[in-house]
Amino acid sequence: MPQSKKTKSLERSLTLRSFSSRHIGLEETAKVEMLNSLGYSDFESFIKDIIPKDILDYSPLQLEEEISEEEALDRLKQIASKNKIYRSFIGQGYYNTFTPKVILRNVFENPGWYTSYTPYQPEISQGRLEALINFQTMVSDLTGLDISNASLLDEATAAAEAMTLAKKVSKSKSENFFVDEQCFPQTIKVIQTRAKPLNIRIITGPSDSCIKKDYFGAIFQYPNSEGFINNFSNEINSSKKKGSIIIMATDLLAMCLIKPPGELGADIAIGSSQRFGVPMGYGGPHAAFISVKEEYRRFLPGRLVGASFDQHGKVAYRLALQTREQHIRRERATSNICTAQALLAIMAGFYAVYHGPEGLKVISQEINNKTSRLAHTLKESGYNIKSDNFFDTIAIKTEEQTDSLLAKASEKKINLRKLNKDNIGISLDETVDEKSLQDILSIFSVKEIKKIKPNSSIQNDLLRTSKFLQHPVFNLYHSETEMLRYIKRLYEKDIALDRAMIPLGSCTMKLNATSEMLPVSWPEFSSIHPFAPNDQVKGYKKLIKELENQLAIITGYSKISLQPNAGSQGEYAGLLAIDAYHKDRGDHERNVCLIPMSAHGTNPASAQMVGMKVVAVECDKEGNIDLNDLKNKVEQHSQNLSSMMITYPSTHGVFESNVKEVCNLVHNQGGLIYIDGANLNAMVGLCYPGKLGGDVSHLNLHKTFCIPHGGGGPGVGPIGVVDRLTKYLPGGHLEDTLVGSVSATKWGSASILPISWMYIRMMGSSGLKKATESAILNANYVAYRLKNHYKVLYKGDNGLVAHECIIDVRNLKENSGIDVEDIAKRLIDYGFHAPTISWPVAGTLMIEPTESESKAELDRFCEAMIQIKEEINRIESGDLDREDNMLKNAPHSAEQVSADNWEHCYSRSEAAYPVEGLRNNKYWCPVSRVDNVYGDRNLVCTCPSMNEFN
Amino acid sequence: MPQSKKTKSLERSLTLRSFSSRHIGLEETAKVEMLNSLGYSDFESFIKDIIPKDILDYSPLQLEEEISEEEALDRLKQIASKNKIYRSFIGQGYYNTFTPKVILRNVFENPGWYTSYTPYQPEISQGRLEALINFQTMVSDLTGLDISNASLLDEATAAAEAMTLAKKVSKSKSENFFVDEQCFPQTIKVIQTRAKPLNIRIITGPSDSCIKKDYFGAIFQYPNSEGFINNFSNEINSSKKKGSIIIMATDLLAMCLIKPPGELGADIAIGSSQRFGVPMGYGGPHAAFISVKEEYRRFLPGRLVGASFDQHGKVAYRLALQTREQHIRRERATSNICTAQALLAIMAGFYAVYHGPEGLKVISQEINNKTSRLAHTLKESGYNIKSDNFFDTIAIKTEEQTDSLLAKASEKKINLRKLNKDNIGISLDETVDEKSLQDILSIFSVKEIKKIKPNSSIQNDLLRTSKFLQHPVFNLYHSETEMLRYIKRLYEKDIALDRAMIPLGSCTMKLNATSEMLPVSWPEFSSIHPFAPNDQVKGYKKLIKELENQLAIITGYSKISLQPNAGSQGEYAGLLAIDAYHKDRGDHERNVCLIPMSAHGTNPASAQMVGMKVVAVECDKEGNIDLNDLKNKVEQHSQNLSSMMITYPSTHGVFESNVKEVCNLVHNQGGLIYIDGANLNAMVGLCYPGKLGGDVSHLNLHKTFCIPHGGGGPGVGPIGVVDRLTKYLPGGHLEDTLVGSVSATKWGSASILPISWMYIRMMGSSGLKKATESAILNANYVAYRLKNHYKVLYKGDNGLVAHECIIDVRNLKENSGIDVEDIAKRLIDYGFHAPTISWPVAGTLMIEPTESESKAELDRFCEAMIQIKEEINRIESGDLDREDNMLKNAPHSAEQVSADNWEHCYSRSEAAYPVEGLRNNKYWCPVSRVDNVYGDRNLVCTCPSMNEFN
Repeated sequence: MPQSKKTKSLERSLTLRSFSSRHIGLEETAKVEMLNSLGYSDFESFIKDIIPKDILDYSPLQLEEEISEEEALDRLKQIASKNKIYRSFIGQGYYNTFTPKVILRNVFENPGWYTSYTPYQPEISQGRLEALINFQTMVSDLTGLDISNASLLDEATAAAEAMTLAKKVSKSKSENFFVDEQCFPQTIKVIQTRAKPLNIRIITGPSDSCIKKDYFGAIFQYPNSEGFINNFSNEINSSKKKGSIIIMATDLLAMCLIKPPGELGADIAIGSSQRFGVPMGYGGPHAAFISVKEEYRRFLPGRLVGASFDQHGKVAYRLALQTREQHIRRERATSNICTAQALLAIMAGFYAVYHGPEGLKVISQEINNKTSRLAHTLKESGYNIKSDNFFDTIAIKTEEQTDSLLAKASEKKINLRKLNKDNIGISLDETVDEKSLQDILSIFSVKEIKKIKPNSSIQNDLLRTSKFLQHPVFNLYHSETEMLRYIKRLYEKDIALDRAMIPLGSCTMKLNATSEMLPVSWPEFSSIHPFAPNDQVKGYKKLIKELENQLAIITGYSKISLQPNAGSQGEYAGLLAIDAYHKDRGDHERNVCLIPMSAHGTNPASAQMVGMKVVAVECDKEGNIDLNDLKNKVEQHSQNLSSMMITYPSTHGVFESNVKEVCNLVHNQGGLIYIDGANLNAMVGLCYPGKLGGDVSHLNLHKTFCIPHGGGGPGVGPIGVVDRLTKYLPGGHLEDTLVGSVSATKWGSASILPISWMYIRMMGSSGLKKATESAILNANYVAYRLKNHYKVLYKGDNGLVAHECIIDVRNLKENSGIDVEDIAKRLIDYGFHAPTISWPVAGTLMIEPTESESKAELDRFCEAMIQIKEEINRIESGDLDREDNMLKNAPHSAEQVSADNWEHCYSRSEAAYPVEGLRNNKYWCPVSRVDNVYGDRNLVCTCPSMNEFN
Repeated sequence: MPQSKKTKSLERSLTLRSFSSRHIGLEETAKVEMLNSLGYSDFESFIKDIIPKDILDYSPLQLEEEISEEEALDRLKQIASKNKIYRSFIGQGYYNTFTPKVILRNVFENPGWYTSYTPYQPEISQGRLEALINFQTMVSDLTGLDISNASLLDEATAAAEAMTLAKKVSKSKSENFFVDEQCFPQTIKVIQTRAKPLNIRIITGPSDSCIKKDYFGAIFQYPNSEGFINNFSNEINSSKKKGSIIIMATDLLAMCLIKPPGELGADIAIGSSQRFGVPMGYGGPHAAFISVKEEYRRFLPGRLVGASFDQHGKVAYRLALQTREQHIRRERATSNICTAQALLAIMAGFYAVYHGPEGLKVISQEINNKTSRLAHTLKESGYNIKSDNFFDTIAIKTEEQTDSLLAKASEKKINLRKLNKDNIGISLDETVDEKSLQDILSIFSVKEIKKIKPNSSIQNDLLRTSKFLQHPVFNLYHSETEMLRYIKRLYEKDIALDRAMIPLGSCTMKLNATSEMLPVSWPEFSSIHPFAPNDQVKGYKKLIKELENQLAIITGYSKISLQPNAGSQGEYAGLLAIDAYHKDRGDHERNVCLIPMSAHGTNPASAQMVGMKVVAVECDKEGNIDLNDLKNKVEQHSQNLSSMMITYPSTHGVFESNVKEVCNLVHNQGGLIYIDGANLNAMVGLCYPGKLGGDVSHLNLHKTFCIPHGGGGPGVGPIGVVDRLTKYLPGGHLEDTLVGSVSATKWGSASILPISWMYIRMMGSSGLKKATESAILNANYVAYRLKNHYKVLYKGDNGLVAHECIIDVRNLKENSGIDVEDIAKRLIDYGFHAPTISWPVAGTLMIEPTESESKAELDRFCEAMIQIKEEINRIESGDLDREDNMLKNAPHSAEQVSADNWEHCYSRSEAAYPVEGLRNNKYWCPVSRVDNVYGDRNLVCTCPSMNEFN
């Protein structure tokens, strides 16, 4: 073989075997074909017609080149091996747990679960919705309160959310909020951070000191940070009389043995479900929870699953009370929370399903017994145990021995909690066996476990007597076989990324490659306590530093904070930084935040959370920021201008050409620019938010950097800032930073950061750029294929869109009666998850296909859209009835199309198999169109009784 | 809490959290209820009414007690860590490979694939059938032969199968078979073992010596064991003239570059597909292949997938030419092969789908380039390389340096192959990177890789020019997203254990627990070459020893051999042992094997393979062995009596009470007893084949000890023997044993043995016994629930069955026209995999529910059966048409029940939703009833063209 041929073949081999060629869905021939159809022969000229010249930077991204999947895994394994796995009995909200292997493999490691989207389309989400209502039922049952949401980000932010909820509903006019000093330290820190810009005054003290003053609300930890189970009756009664709202931070496993907050009179309970089978993972992600009394249901932050019925009277789940959400309420939203921890909540819910009430009781009793034996033995050996009333945690007065005992523990590869210089805390969990108990005692030079005293460690009046988890779902699936089948039955009902494209504008979902996901299960990452000493987490530190560097290079910012565990938290942290910057300079009046009308609803909600005044900026008819209006607003608020929040490319899917001018206008008046990084996937390798005028951005790692969507979480929302803002990034709860903490732990969702690290490393400099180009090409190809059938909104200067395109169907309504929702539901019959509907413009579909899709899949989608347009044409021409047609009645379940009676004026096969391809690849939705109005009027947010299922 | 209550709760906790309570599907209350309905209050009295007193041993099984899943995993991890993972370049049929992670996670680690059964019911197996026809197409394309089967057990047994096939079809009358001395040593060994009892004479020599004599067939390795690619044209031409059948043992990856056997004129190709993404796993399981010219198709051993059509003209896959199989041909069967390596063949097929022809070519070119560079550099450095014509393997003349070089390699944790005292072999693979190449060279004290010479290492006339894998399936799914969706699309079509009970009599499938499956993916088990030196495999040795001990205790035998990699191989090895025993004692005439009429078809087929003469023994009308007939036969053949093969409990699902007498009768005449261990799951902990009279048994680990069925393999078929037979167990290919080798490697399917180890360890003594009791209870409960609706055959003395029950439906045919197949197909509409049909008795269903099923699932199944009986009653009463009814038309696909025209005399909802529960849990088969006759008459065993799919 001649040399040249060999060289060529080796080059080709690099492409064929590279990860980027697996991640990007387009084969080379398809790229050429698609570019040609748009009138281009190469990517560079195509991109130059889309991205404004003054921001486009076609030079190579300054990252390393791609390495293979195996090499990346090897390198990450080396990094991981720098973490040391100690047995941690630190507690403080994080515990060892056994993830049932059937859940590990079939949920956590199953793309059917982790690649699914937030269940906004209930008909294709019945599986995850049922799993989430299980979680809600579990939380509500265990806490003894009426209604629980489908999870929050972490216990500390849940506490902060509870505080703001209390502020809204409290009958007290006080601005004070009481915090039990025995709450977890990280919880107190986040509460303080959140309270400050809202002018809430935090008073911290011993729990019984709360009776001395007026508060709009109070939070107590139960059992508390040192393990005591206090009977808060006095505090509760006294506070209630003053109209205060009582919040209890609690532990779900303890609830199996002790009286739940609801029975003690609390209004709200919050906490973490981590120990229900979700590994500690150096701090997250885990599902926090919040449950409230019925009367506060409309103020619940986050997502809420409710039961309703479908068109044919079958029970169906859906997200309830969605009008509470930010994109509708904007600056009046009760919270900016958008992401939940769905995947982790689902796991925790399954943990309860698998163990059932009896199993959970056994687990909690075992833990309590072991803790009692430990306490008793230490006491008999002369140690001073600070309480006799505990569940799983004891505090030992160790005084001058404290440090030497901790050093001894460390030698045995055991972490205990240093409560302070005089005390050590020990928290036990379900993984503690006899050997661990012996090892702990040996630290205290105790050789033998003493026989246990017969009296309980829980005082009688706080023992739980009420039943919980009586619903059949918690009592049927206790064998692994039954559990496996239940899990499968649920996820089979859903459309996730493993089935079809999910082309959600603004929220699209690219491949979550297996090689990216594998490391998350490695014990070197999953088995680390968030407060493990620094010398045990060198691997994590290295990973985090490398990822921060990579993201800094990609965004053009100086520094990255990985703390925010969702995009909304990132926005909030970014605005906190801006606010702190102004105040640090003495600019106390700068509190106006300009936000274009087209912005995502979390933008104004976040601005509201940092105490900013939101001023809207108009958009022109092309969807771009109206420069004249902006000039006016900037001038008008020049003295008070804090910042402007923009999204780039815009939420309309366009690279606005005047972005630099926009930034300059604001900068010139002393304002800072917040660039929402939601659309960073359209910029990677081609332009840089930190260089085009942004001062701070948050990134959605789940969208751009392959964190799986998990049915609505986890999320990671790091922020990047320019030099002058680096001082104002959030810190850990023990650090003394200017802005405080926005999450419970320093790196909010540490355990899933390997996913993004792997992605960046495997794609490398060229691969990342290619991904961006391919994503933009895909969006334009879809616009091109659909333009003769639908109206495509908001093109850029050269008639091209960015990474997404908006299809306007408002014009169809008059002649056909068909609206955008009908089209969305009809797409289900074709096997697709609908694009984003009615956002950012009502009556439109926003399609964002990502680079991971193949031309074949894009064509399949376009053909579905075109065929649907044909159906609409038939309605317009009178060939089909305006009311009784396949769009209005969509989606069609199998039950429906196989019903004995068929009285529609279109045929069954037109309903079910409108294109031939469906005959070999048909997804059947388990319910027909869900009745949202009924569900919101008749709110049921726990598992409905079995009768309703028959 | 008083002490006694605490103790009780601790006891209870042990049960609630134990693995056995997860594995066994019955909760305590259900057990009691079911025992009561059968008239018993406790297990012991129930079991005593089933198992004959003279064999029942109710004392505890002498195994350790159960440990938790986590503890078992910890202990196994410790064992695993004793294995040392070296980089192995040994080759000899086993190579490092990258399992694409998307295949690893979504096939190998997905219960949807590994818990599925052999696709005997094609309508619920379309996914795995398509995956297997991909494998067949791949093998057929790459080897250039017309037709390939769906895999064999390993390369060596494939060679032996090819030899016996050649014997049947050869035009030569010779008894000689030529074996190229450059075949892999383990292949030669297995061929020799197989040839001996069949009186085939093996002549081994240099390939060109084959022209000197007459042979009925010849086998050549291509490329050969030392890596040479010989042009066998002379040998082939000369042999063909003499009517010989030419077999080529080959390598699929090499086939991408060199001329395939079919193009060279070979009749048969065999080999292993291991390096297509299946880890080495210390020897197996992997999928071997065999492909043949069209004219030999009816003689192909193993399973063959073919395309046909369903009732409605849709392409559908099914097992073709099933009449070749043992249970029909019995002692005239062409082979005793029953199990294939389906799961591994599916993985290898997907590997080809993922890489496509271009990708495979790149992989093989890269390997060849690296090998060329290695050879060239060594040569330039003064080493004597034995050939210039190679693909991935070179042989180096190292003479007196051999051992010191190997020692140096070992220091670098590298394994090379010691060909003999003067030569070292090195085989490269797709995982070899530049560093590995440098490391190999450094062993030879070479520092720098030389620039490669321009000429190829493959001689021109042997370069492949023909195309391969042109079918679209190999050219569409090269992105991970597309691959993921393709995999999901396929497995969603199937019923596996993750969906519903698969109550196959004789072949039932219990839970394959996740904790059992996890260790199979551990690199300490998966990355070990089968011929790695002993000091690297101490973990494996310990595991094997422990498992052998556990199985010896469970069976009551003295010694276990884990070599046979399928039940059929176990039978064969067991009979070889018996035969060797007699011959070793000089009893050369003992060659009669008594087999009851009720035996599984592999029994006579295996007896035939060891040259025994099969004599059938009658059964009485209860299905038991007819003692009178046995007495006659024993007497009649007393001089020649070698053995009797029995199955216990019998294939009719009964503990025959006279089993001891049967054994005595045979023993008294000098015969030995072979007890088929197929039904060992009904005996574990209650009685012992090695104590009740058996001399040897094989066990089906997949049935009793949780090896997953994988859609028809892998299998593990160890044998246990009494003292006097221990000398006659098979050995490794380098060992000098009396019987030789039955598999390519010493412990055939080593890498999946952890599954059974985990099961036994986690169940412990009591758990195993409980499992047996529960399995027997479940079978009797089903018999009890169905007895008023169907005729239950073959009960034991007390009206109870053993672990399975036979439902006789022959009586229904006359009045309703319904036969057993209609019932089986109708069960699909109810979401069930049919029980075993028409075996062991034509016109019956044999139901074996296993201990892993819950009462709820048993009830769901019984209700389906009862409802089906109601449907039959309606036919009998004339309420339904004899031809047009829901049984005759079953199963009903979604397309069918939603068709625009419905002209049946029963309703659509009667077709699809005969019971209400189906509305919330409906499985839709992708095709309707498959036309087997058409498929066999028009045999298509490669992927059909895409047109047929529309």
